[in-house]
Amino acid sequence: MAEPETFKIRRLEISDKKKGFIELLGQLTVAGSLTDEEFDRRFEEISSYGDDHVICVIEDEASGKIAATGSVMIEKKFVRSCGKVGHIEDVVVDSGFRGKQLGKTVVEFLMDHCKAMGCYKVILDCSVEKKSFYEKCGLTHKAIQMSKYFA
Amino acid sequence: MAEPETFKIRRLEISDKKKGFIELLGQLTVAGSLTDEEFDRRFEEISSYGDDHVICVIEDEASGKIAATGSVMIEKKFVRSCGKVGHIEDVVVDSGFRGKQLGKTVVEFLMDHCKAMGCYKVILDCSVEKKSFYEKCGLTHKAIQMSKYFA
Repeated sequence: MAEPETFKIRRLEISDKKKGFIELLGQLTVAGSLTDEEFDRRFEEISSYGDDHVICVIEDEASGKIAATGSVMIEKKFVRSCGKVGHIEDVVVDSGFRGKQLGKTVVEFLMDHCKAMGCYKVILDCSVEKKSFYEKCGLTHKAIQMSKYFA
Repeated sequence: MAEPETFKIRRLEISDKKKGFIELLGQLTVAGSLTDEEFDRRFEEISSYGDDHVICVIEDEASGKIAATGSVMIEKKFVRSCGKVGHIEDVVVDSGFRGKQLGKTVVEFLMDHCKAMGCYKVILDCSVEKKSFYEKCGLTHKAIQMSKYFA
């Protein structure tokens, strides 16, 4: 009989590289290769922003694998009387853990963080296919995203 | 006879509050009121990020007014072998200075900064009406923006 699944949501820890965090990002986009040193350096860089750049993960404690992740970066603006905006990025759920509301749990965790930080709004970019998922999370379609790739 | 217009592009300086910077942002969205102290504090907060959060302005030196502005925030990611992404925000040209390519100059300044910082892409969100302007700047329509307002 399979063990019951026990999911725990928390901030990314430096030991999560060994729990499949990078492989999980590879299900979203090109993760690329990176050494332990490169991972550790980037982890420290992001950590230095404290609450202004938070990466959350959901760990499946039964398997010790990272099942879902998402990040948010807080932008400090002059508009809206020095308002702040949360930018949600890189939300992905492991293909073996879909259908368990983990994506929604990640987005809600990140939105709660933005609210606690005093943001007046949270924004994110996604494909048209993801629109209904984010609507279930309480977001609405607002504008279009433009991009330019340098590499 | 009117003086020739002399435009200078540079990073935001703390003295730009007196040159109409906040009023210019008010042409983009709700700027709100802010005291000199609030402005200075936010200026210092953003400045502390150094090259990771840059606000550029174009000053019309003849009038001493800020004619255009735009900002970019550099996001540090794990994907793409610890890649970086530039997020362009709050691009606006004063209504009295439109038709002089100042918006394009601002966007190119910010994109050049992203390239120099080693970003693999630059992204921004805009209304459908602004799509052709950003296409002239070299960007392409990629995805949709979702948002949720807390206040």
